[in-house]
Amino acid sequence: MPTVRVYVTLKPSLLDSAGRTVSGALQKLGFSEVEEVRIGKLIELKVDSYDEVRVKEMCDKLLANPVIEDYRIEP
Amino acid sequence: MPTVRVYVTLKPSLLDSAGRTVSGALQKLGFSEVEEVRIGKLIELKVDSYDEVRVKEMCDKLLANPVIEDYRIEP
Repeated sequence: MPTVRVYVTLKPSLLDSAGRTVSGALQKLGFSEVEEVRIGKLIELKVDSYDEVRVKEMCDKLLANPVIEDYRIEP
Repeated sequence: MPTVRVYVTLKPSLLDSAGRTVSGALQKLGFSEVEEVRIGKLIELKVDSYDEVRVKEMCDKLLANPVIEDYRIEP
């Protein structure tokens, strides 16, 4: 049974407040080399059979919010 | 400036309730080929310089919960 990975990330133009919080925390822990942090979702789908059109439909309908997010499918 | 990707996922033995909810929703939307869904985090770190030991430290100290999560680093 194939596993498909979908990476959902905030559009680059958007402020990532969660990422900024993590970045600040890493700085406080002494990781001064960290410049920026952006946090997205990794969705692993176990499917009977892989069909890219269907997976795109799943992303457009449910897995990603097209207004603020981009997604990338990795079969 | 290098970008390092860290994939944080729930340990396989753990029930993924968020993933189960998404799986149910996809089924209701007619995507019956979906067997299982697991949801993790994709963390993108922009760093001055890449040092795997340091990134592992960031994961162990903050980015992943070693009790319930696994992580994978992709330079």
